[in-house]
Amino acid sequence: MFTRLLRNVPPFRRIVGVRSYLKSSPAGYSVTETPEAEPSAPVVVTTVPGPKSLALKQELDPIQNTDAIQFFVDYKKSYGNYIADVDGNFLLDLYTQIASVPIGYNHPRMTQVLKDPDNLSTFVNRPALGIFPPSDFVQTLADSLLSVAPPGMRQVITMGCGACSIENGMKAAFMAYRRNERGGKPPSKEELDSCLINQAPGCPDLSVLSFKNAFHGRTMGALALTHTKWNQKLDCPSPDWPIASFPQLKYPLQDFVSENSTEEKRCLAQVEDLIAQYRKKGKPVACVITEPLQCEGGDNFASPQFFQGLQDICKKNSIYLLIDEVQTGAGATGKFWLHEHFNLREPPDIVTFSKKMMLGGLYFRDHMRPTEGYRIMNTWLGDPSKVVMLREVINVIKEDSLLQRTADTGAYLLQVLEEAQKKNPSLLSKARGIGAIAAVDFPDGPTRDKALAKMRELGVHLGTCGTATLRLRPTLTLEKKHVDIFADRFNQVIKQLS
Amino acid sequence: MFTRLLRNVPPFRRIVGVRSYLKSSPAGYSVTETPEAEPSAPVVVTTVPGPKSLALKQELDPIQNTDAIQFFVDYKKSYGNYIADVDGNFLLDLYTQIASVPIGYNHPRMTQVLKDPDNLSTFVNRPALGIFPPSDFVQTLADSLLSVAPPGMRQVITMGCGACSIENGMKAAFMAYRRNERGGKPPSKEELDSCLINQAPGCPDLSVLSFKNAFHGRTMGALALTHTKWNQKLDCPSPDWPIASFPQLKYPLQDFVSENSTEEKRCLAQVEDLIAQYRKKGKPVACVITEPLQCEGGDNFASPQFFQGLQDICKKNSIYLLIDEVQTGAGATGKFWLHEHFNLREPPDIVTFSKKMMLGGLYFRDHMRPTEGYRIMNTWLGDPSKVVMLREVINVIKEDSLLQRTADTGAYLLQVLEEAQKKNPSLLSKARGIGAIAAVDFPDGPTRDKALAKMRELGVHLGTCGTATLRLRPTLTLEKKHVDIFADRFNQVIKQLS
Repeated sequence: MFTRLLRNVPPFRRIVGVRSYLKSSPAGYSVTETPEAEPSAPVVVTTVPGPKSLALKQELDPIQNTDAIQFFVDYKKSYGNYIADVDGNFLLDLYTQIASVPIGYNHPRMTQVLKDPDNLSTFVNRPALGIFPPSDFVQTLADSLLSVAPPGMRQVITMGCGACSIENGMKAAFMAYRRNERGGKPPSKEELDSCLINQAPGCPDLSVLSFKNAFHGRTMGALALTHTKWNQKLDCPSPDWPIASFPQLKYPLQDFVSENSTEEKRCLAQVEDLIAQYRKKGKPVACVITEPLQCEGGDNFASPQFFQGLQDICKKNSIYLLIDEVQTGAGATGKFWLHEHFNLREPPDIVTFSKKMMLGGLYFRDHMRPTEGYRIMNTWLGDPSKVVMLREVINVIKEDSLLQRTADTGAYLLQVLEEAQKKNPSLLSKARGIGAIAAVDFPDGPTRDKALAKMRELGVHLGTCGTATLRLRPTLTLEKKHVDIFADRFNQVIKQLS
Repeated sequence: MFTRLLRNVPPFRRIVGVRSYLKSSPAGYSVTETPEAEPSAPVVVTTVPGPKSLALKQELDPIQNTDAIQFFVDYKKSYGNYIADVDGNFLLDLYTQIASVPIGYNHPRMTQVLKDPDNLSTFVNRPALGIFPPSDFVQTLADSLLSVAPPGMRQVITMGCGACSIENGMKAAFMAYRRNERGGKPPSKEELDSCLINQAPGCPDLSVLSFKNAFHGRTMGALALTHTKWNQKLDCPSPDWPIASFPQLKYPLQDFVSENSTEEKRCLAQVEDLIAQYRKKGKPVACVITEPLQCEGGDNFASPQFFQGLQDICKKNSIYLLIDEVQTGAGATGKFWLHEHFNLREPPDIVTFSKKMMLGGLYFRDHMRPTEGYRIMNTWLGDPSKVVMLREVINVIKEDSLLQRTADTGAYLLQVLEEAQKKNPSLLSKARGIGAIAAVDFPDGPTRDKALAKMRELGVHLGTCGTATLRLRPTLTLEKKHVDIFADRFNQVIKQLS
């Protein structure tokens, strides 16, 4: 099996691929520390996971459940768009730590951030950011998060992860909703007292409307909005909050314009219905939350008109719209935020981020800003060292024009999927994507999983989502040459499967 | 006012304090980068916050609510037990970023971790840890988290922060509880389907019992267990879960042995009552959560017997005991975990950590281990770079015998509080503490706040908790000389106030 795998990689490339890690780096690190170039093609010398990964998994198993582990990674040897595993394989990585690597592994500019003595104390001393912020915090925020804020938004709070961003986005919505209801009056003594024991009126029975197949995280509040897989939710109590259908579009889009428009209207009508229903039920909706593209749920797109309609419904009902860009932001789509493609009449009320942004957080509009201290707070409130890293990611994105490149490379990638689909309509469907986000469906989960395994044998690492979708989430530094490698391997695999 | 403040600092110390930052460091960083020693005493040259802090706060204010900000910090100049603000003040820090700095600012060993080329890729490349762990992960865990695991616990999962640790601790409890109820049978199709839409039986109506005045975090699940201040909870919907009284002990303890024992029994009886009540109500308790010492709620101690009783109740009812050591762990009490002082009959089922541990996470016993993959999961699952930092913190704790030192210094500190209290019984009460945790009560909040402000004027930075408690949370590297400085300033302030 190994020799068969190796036959798929031209020997020259195999050698170059390995050799590039044997040169010494100008930075003075030994070769194993930081490679200075990608291999020119994937190098596959064992199955993945290979024997070393399997041995490490066995070692880890007494400490924690390891069922989700795919393979162990040599992060020192990984570089750019290539992930190196502990068995000596170098895979072209189009999944990138569940879409959380913005500009590739060991990017020299990121390495430099770590080596810069000026950043040392930021990495060594983690502050309670909301109470004792560092001297350069305002400037660092201005140079990073504010420089890429969604149009019309200028308030931002950092968080440790995506789930915490969602949790606090919801809280900001609940607070703004009740502030509105109070009409400028301070909270009553009854509210202040009852909230301490989880009772109304201090803890009112408000709800958040989410969509079927949505994924927003796994803490209790975020999990109440997540509706993808049982292993995320089973056994956990969850509030009775409204869940609307998300449009299930038919592809190719141009052949189903009217059907898809009808489908989106059906979903919007359901949103309005549920808002009315839950108001009657005594659980009024304070906030509608949506991904601008359902990722984990199956890379489900909806049209700009759908999101415009959703915003209209929110405005009409005086409730808030939270767009969760945890997986779709940071330039993945050719614009910095996916919702910028929607031509919304006004900015969303809250936008959450994490993953490729290096840390979590939320942008919000001025009217969502908490009016008292300590309302949106925790000890760390994110981590300034991650903001410093984000600043450099943004610098690289700007200097290397990675938004444009991602749009171009993404279009090229989508073309590959569309052509493969055209040739294999019984195997592939719904090729879709935008920028560094791309997906295609297989007839069923097992066939999709087989394709993924075969792609890995050929040195290309991919992800899945939904029930039968192949999920591609490359970095913003993906180039056409990488797409060509993907295309070559993908066409081989599809041929084998058809 | 400034000259008066300066008069409190002997001129020699003032100069030494400042001069120590003017020497060049052997590591080759310029003087402003990393100081190499603490000042010999606090240096106070302005009020705190000073004009530069106030200006920065004003600059930050358009971006986020800044009401909670106390002052802006120069983390480059902070060192050891001294925090430097942007106005040139050096305060003896006995609050340490809400108890989250284990061995002081810019500890040379931590600086070395950052400069070690071997760690570079760990800081640059953040993995999806549960799926693609780094090659050295098992070894790093063994050298860090497992080497200080609470006795009897060998399972550990890392998380990004304290709240996420609590959220996932609860989830582990819910899952174990239902696994138990299923008696080895797999979940039914009805459970698998209903959980996706937040409905029973897949999302059962289970509850977690917490205590009045507890603090466990601010995400929806953790917030449901938090009962300290309105600004943390107001306007946020929260499940109806049982809340028991936490013992309110009378001090000095030796004078109220019988009263306190009665009080603890009353609270335990209430726990049993609530468990029965909520079972009848159809919201059975799956888990009891408690801090081993209520921190945010007012540094409320209870006896080992109380916690033993609590564990007995949990065992009797086949539910789980989660001890939340987010603020009390990492050696703060002379043992690595506070609950090690309790002589529990068996280990707790789950122990959560964060803050001084550099990242969040949970230890749990084998029977709490999820039996399927992806059950306790998120994209980052903490951050291996923080584990590498923790490993060095633990090395320093072991090499410098900081547990013993913390016990000794803590006893000395407590003595200072007790003596001051003896001399000023109308002003001070309930002096209490263990290791790097110490507290004393004032007659009311405003008097406590006045004392805190006066201490800051004299160069000592402290925290508060509860309604009238002064909260001390120094590092583990606190020495008697620091306690002497605290004592000197504290006695001055108490004299002024009495």
